[in-house]
Amino acid sequence: LLAPPVQRLVTELGKLPGIGQRTAQRLAFHLLRVDAEEAGALADAIRDVKAQIRECEICFNLADEARCRICQDERRDPAVICVVEEFGDVLPIERTHEFRGRYHVLGGALSPIDGVDPEDLHLAELYRRVEQSSPPVREVVIATNPTTTGEATALHIAGVLRERAPEVAVTRLASGLPVGGDLEYADEVTLGRAFAGRRAL
Amino acid sequence: LLAPPVQRLVTELGKLPGIGQRTAQRLAFHLLRVDAEEAGALADAIRDVKAQIRECEICFNLADEARCRICQDERRDPAVICVVEEFGDVLPIERTHEFRGRYHVLGGALSPIDGVDPEDLHLAELYRRVEQSSPPVREVVIATNPTTTGEATALHIAGVLRERAPEVAVTRLASGLPVGGDLEYADEVTLGRAFAGRRAL
Repeated sequence: LLAPPVQRLVTELGKLPGIGQRTAQRLAFHLLRVDAEEAGALADAIRDVKAQIRECEICFNLADEARCRICQDERRDPAVICVVEEFGDVLPIERTHEFRGRYHVLGGALSPIDGVDPEDLHLAELYRRVEQSSPPVREVVIATNPTTTGEATALHIAGVLRERAPEVAVTRLASGLPVGGDLEYADEVTLGRAFAGRRAL
Repeated sequence: LLAPPVQRLVTELGKLPGIGQRTAQRLAFHLLRVDAEEAGALADAIRDVKAQIRECEICFNLADEARCRICQDERRDPAVICVVEEFGDVLPIERTHEFRGRYHVLGGALSPIDGVDPEDLHLAELYRRVEQSSPPVREVVIATNPTTTGEATALHIAGVLRERAPEVAVTRLASGLPVGGDLEYADEVTLGRAFAGRRAL
């Protein structure tokens, strides 16, 4: 019923998470109604983000240069590293203003059943970073999701660091995060308290 | 906190209707995660739709040629014209399979308080179309929204057609549509019944 270019747009919009067929159609109609400049700004923003954004060479967070803004920021304590699963987890932690250290983005969580093994995550880079850091790393805060795979990843990292960097404190965000939930959805207060109450693993 | 290209994408996504700041961020992160080809397909679809889609020269529905698919379809009865406010209203009516005539998209509803006067809508084109049609138009079904402005538009059109084309039946979708609602949200059954039970104005 729709002209092919409109149908294609509806299909592409419908691939976005949480966007059903009806919503995709409404968004497509909206883009048809607005002027070409406004629609073009969205198309450009998508293209630019893919062309200009890469992974930080140190922590694998999003970056528009070789190093991300946080790794470039001299005021951020390099002796404390917060380990998260995805780059989407950095922003909610930043919003709590509880953490002034650096990050390390793993790119997922260990899940042998889904074929995600230690070598599929940025774990080797984390261990190397902890071992070679100057000034030395004092603490690694593991902020993986409070899910089965997130917990397994936390325990795995704690085990390896106990061997390879026994002088480094390894901590985990306090419970208080709803178990089975997703860190990206947590509100600032809950996540802030979880940060303040982190415990040794 | 976000790199400028990411922030720009979040801003542009947040301009879409019903997409708040948090959702825009999740969509942006999704686009950062998928491969460049998939993200590019969305950007291209947006560009293509603006470049290739125009208004049908007869009915002002969306078209990828001079005339829309419905105006090109010989099986659609040209003697019955369904008048809608927006092109987004055509699809829900098509889904009811109650209507086999043609459409006329006004581009809005009369609302003097918002500065929308008869000359701002495709009304002159509607009247000319009704007067000059061969075969002659038998019926004009007014399917503007069941809102104050939609009703005012329906009454306005009925008044003009009574003068200029007194032989043409002018009908209005039956009540049954929730008053104050928006046609684009109606389910097929309700809208289908409203169509079947349309009454003379």
